[in-house]
Amino acid sequence: MPEYKVVTSKIDPKDAVIVSAENNQHIVTQAKFALSFKGKEAKVGQVFKFKCLLEENQIGLTQVMMNKLGVTEGEMVTLQSVGRTISKSFSLIKQRITQPGKIFTKNEIDQIVSDITLDNMTPLEESVFLTSQMLQEWSIGEVECLTKARARSGETINWGETVIFDKHSLGGVPGNKVTLLVVPIIAAVGLTIPKTSSRAITSPSGTADTMEALGCDIEFTIDEMVDIAQNIGGLIAWTGGLNIVPADEKIIRDVQYPLGIDPEPMMMASVISKKIAMGVKFLVLDIPCGYGTKVANLDTGKRLAHRFSELGRLVGIRIESGITYGSSPVGNAIGPALEAREALTSLKNSLEAPHSLVGKSTSLAGILLEMAGKTIPGTGQEMAYEILNSGKAYKKFQQILEAQNADPDLKPADIEVGSATYEYLAPQSGYVVEIDNKVIVRAARAAGAPMDKRAGIYFHKKKDSVKRGEILFTLYSSNEKKLAAAEAELVKGDLPVTIEGMLLARE
Amino acid sequence: MPEYKVVTSKIDPKDAVIVSAENNQHIVTQAKFALSFKGKEAKVGQVFKFKCLLEENQIGLTQVMMNKLGVTEGEMVTLQSVGRTISKSFSLIKQRITQPGKIFTKNEIDQIVSDITLDNMTPLEESVFLTSQMLQEWSIGEVECLTKARARSGETINWGETVIFDKHSLGGVPGNKVTLLVVPIIAAVGLTIPKTSSRAITSPSGTADTMEALGCDIEFTIDEMVDIAQNIGGLIAWTGGLNIVPADEKIIRDVQYPLGIDPEPMMMASVISKKIAMGVKFLVLDIPCGYGTKVANLDTGKRLAHRFSELGRLVGIRIESGITYGSSPVGNAIGPALEAREALTSLKNSLEAPHSLVGKSTSLAGILLEMAGKTIPGTGQEMAYEILNSGKAYKKFQQILEAQNADPDLKPADIEVGSATYEYLAPQSGYVVEIDNKVIVRAARAAGAPMDKRAGIYFHKKKDSVKRGEILFTLYSSNEKKLAAAEAELVKGDLPVTIEGMLLARE
Repeated sequence: MPEYKVVTSKIDPKDAVIVSAENNQHIVTQAKFALSFKGKEAKVGQVFKFKCLLEENQIGLTQVMMNKLGVTEGEMVTLQSVGRTISKSFSLIKQRITQPGKIFTKNEIDQIVSDITLDNMTPLEESVFLTSQMLQEWSIGEVECLTKARARSGETINWGETVIFDKHSLGGVPGNKVTLLVVPIIAAVGLTIPKTSSRAITSPSGTADTMEALGCDIEFTIDEMVDIAQNIGGLIAWTGGLNIVPADEKIIRDVQYPLGIDPEPMMMASVISKKIAMGVKFLVLDIPCGYGTKVANLDTGKRLAHRFSELGRLVGIRIESGITYGSSPVGNAIGPALEAREALTSLKNSLEAPHSLVGKSTSLAGILLEMAGKTIPGTGQEMAYEILNSGKAYKKFQQILEAQNADPDLKPADIEVGSATYEYLAPQSGYVVEIDNKVIVRAARAAGAPMDKRAGIYFHKKKDSVKRGEILFTLYSSNEKKLAAAEAELVKGDLPVTIEGMLLARE
Repeated sequence: MPEYKVVTSKIDPKDAVIVSAENNQHIVTQAKFALSFKGKEAKVGQVFKFKCLLEENQIGLTQVMMNKLGVTEGEMVTLQSVGRTISKSFSLIKQRITQPGKIFTKNEIDQIVSDITLDNMTPLEESVFLTSQMLQEWSIGEVECLTKARARSGETINWGETVIFDKHSLGGVPGNKVTLLVVPIIAAVGLTIPKTSSRAITSPSGTADTMEALGCDIEFTIDEMVDIAQNIGGLIAWTGGLNIVPADEKIIRDVQYPLGIDPEPMMMASVISKKIAMGVKFLVLDIPCGYGTKVANLDTGKRLAHRFSELGRLVGIRIESGITYGSSPVGNAIGPALEAREALTSLKNSLEAPHSLVGKSTSLAGILLEMAGKTIPGTGQEMAYEILNSGKAYKKFQQILEAQNADPDLKPADIEVGSATYEYLAPQSGYVVEIDNKVIVRAARAAGAPMDKRAGIYFHKKKDSVKRGEILFTLYSSNEKKLAAAEAELVKGDLPVTIEGMLLARE
């Protein structure tokens, strides 16, 4: 904890002149000034004057602001006070909230997406928009308009004759390295599956992080991605590296992430607009269901699957969903390096793979194989399992590793994991009945994951019987202090692992 | 419009060290750092480093931040990065949004009000709270808890044996100078009515602004206010000058004002918590109803009146409501000086008063007189009218003017109005059927009201027949440019005044 000596700030925010509106950590609740240059205008909320840095008639602008106004050093801009301004979109949003039966028209949704993309809405206004989505049902037509408007905000890939397949998970389950098995299985039969994945936002590892732990490059231009996908059928790239659906970025950063909310219409539009931009035609959707995921129970999962399939029909993508068990981690490994090891081990020898990982990967891949007509309905999973077992999926994965500039002969043991470890022992004998994903995720993140790729958790026992004192799981970190912080997470609230017959509380 | 020469900003927001978190114009979406000193902690979102101002180990703090931490110049503070933090209250708010049937407990509401008051919630979180109130019905028990929790956040006045009466308007109608008549009518019969009023936020004049236009002091300490009220029975003070219900201020400034939203549970709690703090026992509530007000129709008005009366019962205040016509301005004058003139004229000689002003004032005062048992039910308005007509109300108002350090013998013509004027003429003959409050308010504010006390609008014709070319109303301002801006408001959208038989559009 760095220490500083206090002096009274010589900067008075009430003074005028250096303008900064681009600070990610702050948002303007009320634009107080408008900067203008040759007809372009930018609203700003903050104006500082630093006499030690600037002369009386000078204004210091950040590079981002200069680009926004199209102004260069030495030119003159005007600065003007403005009153309270409410975006046009916000009036529409208030109407939908207050007028019974009101739903958005296509033009209204276009206006809102445009205002989000062009930074005409404040985060406060955006949070009202998102909150209303948590409380008001959207028609599928509105979701369609939102999806299409967002898809138009960025680039769209033209694949020519190539038919694009994809797999997407709604997330919320730790250890979900399923993509690393599904992509090579699908590509191994000659289908094209250019998968784009995110880095972890709130989880211990995103698929993009796990690929990096394998030594892969994950940032590609669209041309590079198309080239690899056309040549070998599959790759796993980082979504953030491509300029697809920029409308997403600002609202996620300013509102969804800080509040931890992801309402259904926005979530559906966010997923499917990216698929439209990517040119996807067949999509298998993984809907994890259960404690800690976005979908509390099977009925909610089925309803969501139905809405996705309807949305897909409206935008020209065939979508089938697999509702999967999400209350426990997938496989035994959590964290980038540990998950990379487990995925590679499973591809090389499926007999060494955890049942939950192989089962989930082959069932999702099976759905895609059936959708593609590669096999008759009901036999997809068997076919996927055969592709995995035969080593064809591993061979395809080696091509992917090579295309993404990693070592195709990488061994699982070559992937280094944290040297600071802590073993969590069974407090009594019995049967493991529950693993609390939220506690496990907090501990893995406290240990350093995903930034520390070597940090994470490895389960030795999941749905097994254990004897008192046996190791349930091992915590890994590159840093002793972080390991201690992760240990602290394990004892402060709910139990990470519950064993049948345990007395949970006595009061 | 001041012009500035652009230079590239020499301040990189990514650098560390001057901390400012108190900037009203910005809000922290995500606290990025925690400053701590002797166990006290303050979250901050913004850290700048200015090498020209500070040495390497120095940190510049604003005075507000230094007070918050209890630190003085030269002492050492620590600065630490923090992850995403979501307030305890926000988890409760999310639960109420996502869990069917969930309502808040008293403890949960206490937690939320405490988090708002102590600045533990971000404006983004607060906006989710307010938006959910627009879409989810609150039980009256929840509103009661919210009201009581807010009342506890500030001072409460002890009046001893004195019974306190009050009048409150939910607002939304321009020209509503009714308080200036009701207070002296009630005080004239020996009742105590220490009225606190706000300055205009979005209207052309608040009651506090109008009192200032009469030359009155409006800022009093609680002791001064109690003293005046005990001596002469009434006064009209500015709410902002008293430290009652501070929980209100932050959320209004950060969220309600920028978004222009005022959801029912928060609005009810805001009104009634101030009445609790003021020690009010009998309250007449003015619920203006109609286009442009908060209440769209009579049914909504009745429902709201019922909820207020129920809430009053739960917190020990007897509340009766008058649902009033709110689609046109009250009286003929809009803007501080013009309204002050009209109120004073009406008190001096009720025969010169506009019907709408006298009618509304006496009916609301009549309800209070009946509640106080000063007259039998059904005769309150008659009694109020008699007090006004007899000059007793004017005599009481002269005492109020004197107590608030104004000239008790002030003449209406002494109150100066703007010298820049514009006359709006009837475009055709007919009957005035509609005055558009929103257009009128925009024009009066563009003319300078309420900051320019002399700015405003005076109607020569309201529900009258007019001849083409007759003056419908006069715009006043102290400033020719602002007058021109106000004129522009009159022609850019809807018509300010509609005359029967007008062809509104031909397309």
